[in-house]
Amino acid sequence: MKNSIGNNVILTVFGESHGPAVGVVLDGLAPGIEVSDADIAAFLSVRRPSDSTATARREPDRFQILSGVFQGYTTGAPICIVIPNADVRSQDYEELRGIARPSHADYTAQVKYGGFQDWRGGGHFSGRVTAGIVAAGAIACKALARRGISVGSHILSCGSAMDADALELAPNGMQECVSALSGMDFPLLCPERKDDFMNVIGQAAADGDSVGGTVQTIITGLPAGLGEPWFDSVEGSISKAVFALGGVKGIEFGKGFGFARGTGSQLNDPFILENGKVRTATNNNGGINGGITNGMPVIFNTAVKPTPSITKSQKTVNFADMEPCTVSVKGRHDAAIVRRIPIVITSMAAITVCDMLVTSGSFTQGDRMSAW
Amino acid sequence: MKNSIGNNVILTVFGESHGPAVGVVLDGLAPGIEVSDADIAAFLSVRRPSDSTATARREPDRFQILSGVFQGYTTGAPICIVIPNADVRSQDYEELRGIARPSHADYTAQVKYGGFQDWRGGGHFSGRVTAGIVAAGAIACKALARRGISVGSHILSCGSAMDADALELAPNGMQECVSALSGMDFPLLCPERKDDFMNVIGQAAADGDSVGGTVQTIITGLPAGLGEPWFDSVEGSISKAVFALGGVKGIEFGKGFGFARGTGSQLNDPFILENGKVRTATNNNGGINGGITNGMPVIFNTAVKPTPSITKSQKTVNFADMEPCTVSVKGRHDAAIVRRIPIVITSMAAITVCDMLVTSGSFTQGDRMSAW
Amino acid sequence: MKNSIGNNVILTVFGESHGPAVGVVLDGLAPGIEVSDADIAAFLSVRRPSDSTATARREPDRFQILSGVFQGYTTGAPICIVIPNADVRSQDYEELRGIARPSHADYTAQVKYGGFQDWRGGGHFSGRVTAGIVAAGAIACKALARRGISVGSHILSCGSAMDADALELAPNGMQECVSALSGMDFPLLCPERKDDFMNVIGQAAADGDSVGGTVQTIITGLPAGLGEPWFDSVEGSISKAVFALGGVKGIEFGKGFGFARGTGSQLNDPFILENGKVRTATNNNGGINGGITNGMPVIFNTAVKPTPSITKSQKTVNFADMEPCTVSVKGRHDAAIVRRIPIVITSMAAITVCDMLVTSGSFTQGDRMSAW
Amino acid sequence: MKNSIGNNVILTVFGESHGPAVGVVLDGLAPGIEVSDADIAAFLSVRRPSDSTATARREPDRFQILSGVFQGYTTGAPICIVIPNADVRSQDYEELRGIARPSHADYTAQVKYGGFQDWRGGGHFSGRVTAGIVAAGAIACKALARRGISVGSHILSCGSAMDADALELAPNGMQECVSALSGMDFPLLCPERKDDFMNVIGQAAADGDSVGGTVQTIITGLPAGLGEPWFDSVEGSISKAVFALGGVKGIEFGKGFGFARGTGSQLNDPFILENGKVRTATNNNGGINGGITNGMPVIFNTAVKPTPSITKSQKTVNFADMEPCTVSVKGRHDAAIVRRIPIVITSMAAITVCDMLVTSGSFTQGDRMSAW
Repeated sequence: MKNSIGNNVILTVFGESHGPAVGVVLDGLAPGIEVSDADIAAFLSVRRPSDSTATARREPDRFQILSGVFQGYTTGAPICIVIPNADVRSQDYEELRGIARPSHADYTAQVKYGGFQDWRGGGHFSGRVTAGIVAAGAIACKALARRGISVGSHILSCGSAMDADALELAPNGMQECVSALSGMDFPLLCPERKDDFMNVIGQAAADGDSVGGTVQTIITGLPAGLGEPWFDSVEGSISKAVFALGGVKGIEFGKGFGFARGTGSQLNDPFILENGKVRTATNNNGGINGGITNGMPVIFNTAVKPTPSITKSQKTVNFADMEPCTVSVKGRHDAAIVRRIPIVITSMAAITVCDMLVTSGSFTQGDRMSAW
Repeated sequence: MKNSIGNNVILTVFGESHGPAVGVVLDGLAPGIEVSDADIAAFLSVRRPSDSTATARREPDRFQILSGVFQGYTTGAPICIVIPNADVRSQDYEELRGIARPSHADYTAQVKYGGFQDWRGGGHFSGRVTAGIVAAGAIACKALARRGISVGSHILSCGSAMDADALELAPNGMQECVSALSGMDFPLLCPERKDDFMNVIGQAAADGDSVGGTVQTIITGLPAGLGEPWFDSVEGSISKAVFALGGVKGIEFGKGFGFARGTGSQLNDPFILENGKVRTATNNNGGINGGITNGMPVIFNTAVKPTPSITKSQKTVNFADMEPCTVSVKGRHDAAIVRRIPIVITSMAAITVCDMLVTSGSFTQGDRMSAW
Repeated sequence: MKNSIGNNVILTVFGESHGPAVGVVLDGLAPGIEVSDADIAAFLSVRRPSDSTATARREPDRFQILSGVFQGYTTGAPICIVIPNADVRSQDYEELRGIARPSHADYTAQVKYGGFQDWRGGGHFSGRVTAGIVAAGAIACKALARRGISVGSHILSCGSAMDADALELAPNGMQECVSALSGMDFPLLCPERKDDFMNVIGQAAADGDSVGGTVQTIITGLPAGLGEPWFDSVEGSISKAVFALGGVKGIEFGKGFGFARGTGSQLNDPFILENGKVRTATNNNGGINGGITNGMPVIFNTAVKPTPSITKSQKTVNFADMEPCTVSVKGRHDAAIVRRIPIVITSMAAITVCDMLVTSGSFTQGDRMSAW
Repeated sequence: MKNSIGNNVILTVFGESHGPAVGVVLDGLAPGIEVSDADIAAFLSVRRPSDSTATARREPDRFQILSGVFQGYTTGAPICIVIPNADVRSQDYEELRGIARPSHADYTAQVKYGGFQDWRGGGHFSGRVTAGIVAAGAIACKALARRGISVGSHILSCGSAMDADALELAPNGMQECVSALSGMDFPLLCPERKDDFMNVIGQAAADGDSVGGTVQTIITGLPAGLGEPWFDSVEGSISKAVFALGGVKGIEFGKGFGFARGTGSQLNDPFILENGKVRTATNNNGGINGGITNGMPVIFNTAVKPTPSITKSQKTVNFADMEPCTVSVKGRHDAAIVRRIPIVITSMAAITVCDMLVTSGSFTQGDRMSAW
């Protein structure tokens, strides 16, 4: 599927960093979902860099909905959203032509596409493509809201800075946390800790370096029974969607890697009854048993590597002449991807949940879906 | 796709723990791959429990190849392999009917399938289904060997026991490590540490408990250029395949979550020239840049939770009468899934690599693939 | 997808004519569909040859359901059905090895699989594989019956013999016609015309020749709104499924090729109101407008070529030595595929309709499906 | 997949007749294919109406390539082409709101999308969307030309007017025929018969009526071995692609429905040797045996119904008030779809062949593809 993902709600991405535009086609959403430019603009503005630690590239992100929306509602036809590239300064990259930036796709793209790839600013591999994903994510979140499902992400850690862990919060308060996150420019469960994060990111920026981190995503309001056995498990579907994002190198659900050091008696989630409904006493499995949602909040953490582009000098190779060289990336970049990626992960998760709702609902030919 | 995975090499699984058989259909492999019963039997025997810490269920795993193999070679037609269930003792489970074992799929399956699921021994969610996956994996590994590609997994950790980390080994020695792992009943890079692991697992078994761990998988001999931008990235494709396996709750590539605590200058992998070929000085990215292989070994770690089934008493709910109850699982189970899952992860990784080889080769209509 | 078809209800076929068995995996059906061996056996017996004009190969078609059915109902897990090959007489084909039977897949399979294909009796290309399809079709028809949907096929023509055309019947009587067809060994709307057909087929058999024909398929009880715009149109989905069958060389919906000679004013189907419900006065479009069902019976005709295998001597090439030669096929074959294919087309149509019901229902996340 | 088609080369369509634009995303093509605006413009101009018998709607079809092409060549990234809608006169349709035009998608779209569909001018079901398909087809044909593969279509019949049948031409001359067709505004094998066709179409237009016809498509230069057994057969893949087009109601390969009236000895295609290469003496199977290309030209005929929109008064229903009414379509329409659809069928066939080349090449992991 290459640049498309999903079984029934299908997202397709296109565009290059320095081409005319980036965009998406989102197909398979129900008709009748309200779509407002304001919702999309709000998502795009959260993604957009806004302070000194972020890339100096400033994109107005003026988007155009080319299809699939009529009189303010989805029609059921594919939705194409195009976001023109405005603030393009290819000359920043001209001097880098042929130089493989360490940990970037420059070299792999060269091998894969034999030199025909648009190499300017990472081309199709650029984070710029995520602007389209976020626009689609805004619509997906609107569709989920109709069913009482909320998706939110926060920066769990960046270098030594740490936010609170949702796994330690009472499941009942979870919904409020997620609502609070929406629209936050710098999403944290404990906003008072923002300075810790800004210090870490600012220090990296000052050093001409970059820093990694983790993002935690919370999905509330999911019915039990979503996901499929084996290959379309909730974990498998979400992980495939999230690993699409440049810089993501790891993902864990619930306790994730924490399970490796514990025992079944410590980490199993006992089932209990609460007002006649089944829930679990703890949520170490992050709302998923056997790949299927159990009705508890789905919680997963994503590991994000430091921005590969740094101004510090690095050893590399120029594949134009196959000579070793050094590179110091002058381009405009974020000191920490983790600072901008939460809304993108939220968007990919929301689109994936829409697809799972349709797919898992469909296996009973709609009977269960309609019961929600 | 539910029970199928892959774009061009497609694996489909079927079967229940206590039904007549489990099996797979593997479609899309090239014709002319040698298939020997011995290879398949060898993989199945590694997966099979073999000591006191493993489940007492003893399956001879007599498999039958129903199609797709003729005179010892793949034909290019779909390969169906069936493995009858022999040692079935449903009575172990009869008393559990309706009781949701904590952290198991019992409850989610009940909600999803409305009571029609085969609830015996986990039914279609049972690890028993992985016997078919391993049989298919044996063929996939044979196909990869023809191209000089090797896949191997070892137990990286279990509770407090630790094996060596391949990321710290010289990339050149990697191939030997992987070969050494193949056929190991208890795969470790440092076999002399086996006692540490057996002590941890033995202790959990003695406690009527279970213990988690991590598995590390190494793929050598991959060409650069495999994988697709965005949704069919190497990380995304492998993670979706590995999360299919019960008990897997996290995955990380290269340094994975270790990236969260470091900087770009520390963790970027500089490109260097070695005998005129491009490689990286370090392999923190686990052989993948921008979702595409860079020619270095692909290395990833999988987090595996403790076996949910333990004999210790646990709180839960009986959804037959919606009453709280306790459960102590008398069935036959492993004290540590991590002890049997490495060959299954190796199999899923090998099948995924076969699919990526075909898919990524095809984008240039075969021209690049044939250059290998 | 090669040997699999469907978006949400997915059929996978495997097996060779002279291998151990043929079979299918049917995935994505709802749980709770009653499955009886008698239903499957009935479908298989209709497909089975039963008189002197049919192949002398006699297969008991003893099938085994390996998975996905528990206590008489579908579980929602993939259903694998295996049908062992009993009456295999490969020596009939030994002498044909390397000889490309005209209009058969022998030559194309040789080119495609480079000699590794199972060449015995057509191998994976053999009509024998349709036994599995018919077994799956029996379950699909059961699922459709729950929703008041019926599928039936009859032999519309064979050489000069003609049956009545359903397009000329009153739509209201259609349901009865379809019911009458089910279980007919030689399905005709006008059974009294059977002799005309037997004469044509018998004559061809007596000449050591074969004869072509057309099959008409009728689907009643479909809701309006099934199918998708553009690529998953009802016509496109059904045609892809039906062209999978060897010997099918054409398909037309409603008036089909008859549209080529008429005008809009003659052939448009006016909408009328009947008891407050919208229907069309005529059904020249075969129940489909813009690729979507309009609530009228879906009617399509399939063109089936004469069995390529004839005892009359034919010119061909032996690709073993690349020498011209002649061939007279001694194997056991039907004088007319059209005589056995109706139940196979019915099965493929029923499986496709199940998939369309789920897929088209899902686009509104189940709301519409549940309204039926 | 709804609005996407293909396994490895994937076409996605979007847009509505009276929305801002129509367009496509074409993903999976190899990098390095030369793309010139002139090629695309030429295809679009053939599709564009150009005389009094065609719709009066005049679209300049100014297209923009938003991605996937860099410095004149494909990059390997998805190609998005957008074609703005310029000459939109929605008022033509305002009065039709709620009125189901007979044999149109108006009613089925209303049922399927519950009134949220863009109903203006057929919305997403409009033939206008084929402008994007034709733009993609121009690129696909360029890719095929590199491999010596040509695709062409001509109007085989319209009402009583008939062109020559390619099945009666010498296979060797076929290539020239196809070349001659490219760029023809009114494609015929016998251009001298154009008047017969114009008379038929002109008469229908004069009557305020429309007329149907058939289109014949020829593909030369295909290697043997393309296509997959069972569900991705050449016939199945092409038919699914062609039935996506509004007005198509039937398709036949080679003799197609002609097989129904003949015998095996008459219609089988004997294999012969020509300069050491295998070919068939006749081509009744249209270049396909067992769903796989045999190296002969692939030839298929498509049945196209009369344009449903006619000015003659027709009975129908207004679903706004559920009252019977009559309709006389004043909009701007072609008297014969068959007059504009050949280039669209050529485009869908070319895109499908690109996909088959990649898919069938890939099954041997590229070895066979590279041999071409």
